[in-house]
Amino acid sequence: MQQLEFELTKEFRDRFQEALDQRDQTFIVEALEHVKAADISALLYEFNSEESKYVMGLLSLGTQAEIVRDLDSDTRANFLKIYESNEIAGIMNQMDSDDAADILNELPIKIREEVLSILDIELRIQVTELLRYEENVAGGLMAKELIKVRVNWTVVQCVEEIRKQAENVTKFYTVYVVDEFDKLLGRVSLKEIMIADARKTVAEILEQDIVYVGTYLEDTEVADMMRRYDLESIPVVNVQGQLVGRITIDDIVDVITEQAEEERQIMSGISENVEEDDSVWRNTRARLPWLLIGIGGGLINAKFMGLFEMELQRVTALAFFVPLIQATGGNVGIQSSSLIVQSLANPGFVVEGLWPRLSKVFLVAIMNGFFLSILVFGANYLLFNERSLSLIVSIALFSVVIFASFIGTITPLILNKLGFNPALASGPFITTTNDLLGLTLYFFTVHLLL
Amino acid sequence: MQQLEFELTKEFRDRFQEALDQRDQTFIVEALEHVKAADISALLYEFNSEESKYVMGLLSLGTQAEIVRDLDSDTRANFLKIYESNEIAGIMNQMDSDDAADILNELPIKIREEVLSILDIELRIQVTELLRYEENVAGGLMAKELIKVRVNWTVVQCVEEIRKQAENVTKFYTVYVVDEFDKLLGRVSLKEIMIADARKTVAEILEQDIVYVGTYLEDTEVADMMRRYDLESIPVVNVQGQLVGRITIDDIVDVITEQAEEERQIMSGISENVEEDDSVWRNTRARLPWLLIGIGGGLINAKFMGLFEMELQRVTALAFFVPLIQATGGNVGIQSSSLIVQSLANPGFVVEGLWPRLSKVFLVAIMNGFFLSILVFGANYLLFNERSLSLIVSIALFSVVIFASFIGTITPLILNKLGFNPALASGPFITTTNDLLGLTLYFFTVHLLL
Repeated sequence: MQQLEFELTKEFRDRFQEALDQRDQTFIVEALEHVKAADISALLYEFNSEESKYVMGLLSLGTQAEIVRDLDSDTRANFLKIYESNEIAGIMNQMDSDDAADILNELPIKIREEVLSILDIELRIQVTELLRYEENVAGGLMAKELIKVRVNWTVVQCVEEIRKQAENVTKFYTVYVVDEFDKLLGRVSLKEIMIADARKTVAEILEQDIVYVGTYLEDTEVADMMRRYDLESIPVVNVQGQLVGRITIDDIVDVITEQAEEERQIMSGISENVEEDDSVWRNTRARLPWLLIGIGGGLINAKFMGLFEMELQRVTALAFFVPLIQATGGNVGIQSSSLIVQSLANPGFVVEGLWPRLSKVFLVAIMNGFFLSILVFGANYLLFNERSLSLIVSIALFSVVIFASFIGTITPLILNKLGFNPALASGPFITTTNDLLGLTLYFFTVHLLL
Repeated sequence: MQQLEFELTKEFRDRFQEALDQRDQTFIVEALEHVKAADISALLYEFNSEESKYVMGLLSLGTQAEIVRDLDSDTRANFLKIYESNEIAGIMNQMDSDDAADILNELPIKIREEVLSILDIELRIQVTELLRYEENVAGGLMAKELIKVRVNWTVVQCVEEIRKQAENVTKFYTVYVVDEFDKLLGRVSLKEIMIADARKTVAEILEQDIVYVGTYLEDTEVADMMRRYDLESIPVVNVQGQLVGRITIDDIVDVITEQAEEERQIMSGISENVEEDDSVWRNTRARLPWLLIGIGGGLINAKFMGLFEMELQRVTALAFFVPLIQATGGNVGIQSSSLIVQSLANPGFVVEGLWPRLSKVFLVAIMNGFFLSILVFGANYLLFNERSLSLIVSIALFSVVIFASFIGTITPLILNKLGFNPALASGPFITTTNDLLGLTLYFFTVHLLL
């Protein structure tokens, strides 16, 4: 068996570049013979479009299709610019309908129409249907390639039909069973077909209790279902209950990965889908909105502290503890919201009521707040030797922990209720709010006790 | 076909509780007849262990096994306490070896040994082998159930053998091919077997270029490989190259989900794997370490500001802008580190050099910093009518944006180099560092210009 760990070393890259410069066909073909398409994709990021196209030309159309599919969408859009429409169609003819539809969607409208018009007739029909759906619903994720049999057939007929259909379907695990109107009735597993007596009918080995989704179900919900039921593929039906496609787990893995990435961006205050290798301008633009919110919060903070200028003039040391109060409020708030976001994302758990949730958060906050306040009181007393100021800081800190926990808990719940992504609450939003909250509580305590 | 959307309504829950109180077997059996095991698991979270055990007793052993497998590990450990060892073994006999091994690992050692000793002999041998591996390596993820054929067999022999082996294997997509010493040679797809001429030998339809992993590969790397190559299962070999198991995509989906969850916890400063429904004490403990680091940073901040007491006494308004500076530094730092974490997590990209990376970050920082400084200068001038103070704040802000970007970029790279999770850099760690950094830069500017 061939070793497949393909590692892109600098040596290999340089040797490959050399071969490319000399158009050394033999070397390139041999070098890539046992390399998987996904690894060739990664390699092509190293070369310019013309060079990549030359390499592609030495590979089979099937491999070319896999490579194009594996490129990330920005790179792909750029790369395909140097291809003619008929070249794109030639490659696309080797793809599954869902991948072809996704890529068509990225092309400029004129090219899209051209390519579509010269695709193989069968693929064209399938793709045209898929183009109707939004990207982030079941219809936009599904592929048209699947294997289906009629409920009244025998197992022998089934096997014949499967042999015929299987040539066009790259990944198949399940055989779907439909009636004469294409209405989904259930499925039979390949295993069942291989084990079953050849004279039985499909109806006899039919598994009826299967999970399916409608074309308009959101991708994240499809992901939740497939994850919950450990499915490797799920059939998609239209409103009439007819089988129109199937979604495979590899697409769902992508959905889950993208979801996690989106959440990370939201949590870190990045407002559009941006990657490190996007342009400087795009990177700047993606960061600005949340920075501006932070700046807005900072200016309000400044104005607010201005109200206490007298107190600050009297006891300058008051200002020393603003960072401590604010940092703790921010940390507590993000911890709280993050736990709620996690619960909301975890479909295995039953939704608890608001009150048990809050009372628990409250208890945790009291424990943390109490512990931290005592500690800070001790530390302050040792560091600054100021009893009344230390007391004020500790009392404010305690209240900040309680309030920040509360806000961190209800914000994601409210956002979720209103249909926003609850992870928004773990981003700079909660930090900015909690900064203001911390300052208010601190100076309120100062005002009461100093 | 049965509708499967199972929704746990309050009415159903109450009706079910009533049936449970009356031990109304008929109702329970009928109510659960078409409900998938994963949904029954979710339902059981609503009832106590005794009640759940009663419900379980009314279901088939196969369904019981699925339910136990789907519970989250804390709940399961608790629930299985009321089971005898022979009852656990009975349920476990219906599980795949990987699930059985995972669950055995959670049991108290005495129970584990008892259960293991009364498992079906075949499963016992398989599980005993799996128990040797750490949870987070390929060996710990793999199942022993797989279908393998000899390279010198004919397709007919294959089909016979597959029929025999398939009874013990719940999910199978691929048939692995081995030599007489069990060395992995490649695979044949089920599709190929169904399409191929029955008289051909396995060697003729063998696919040699397949991806496999060693038993000691880390789970996240297995996940990356399966994601990259769009695999639904991957074979696992030992150091001699013998086929010892296979990992299926559903386990990898769990790995990916857990990875995302872990990252979220790290980013939000939660130090142990904790869920909202864990105990108050565990929740408190999980939060304290990062809060303490924040407090430590806050105390250092306070001490540091103390050094500038004179300046602050002279111009109290200096204190007003500390929150603005620190918040912006924190936000910029987290944005930067998050983008790097994303690049590092994205296996599709080739690692770029440090310098191109830094120079780009630097450009983005200059643009953001410039824009924000101008804005803040204008705002401050309008709000406070203090030109020299406004200038100081803007200069400090500009430097903070640059430095925080730099620290946010190199910290995850360094952490990654040292073998730590780079997401650590997106947590309270970077915020605390940047708070101090911001304060230093601010007062340094004050010192120079005021």
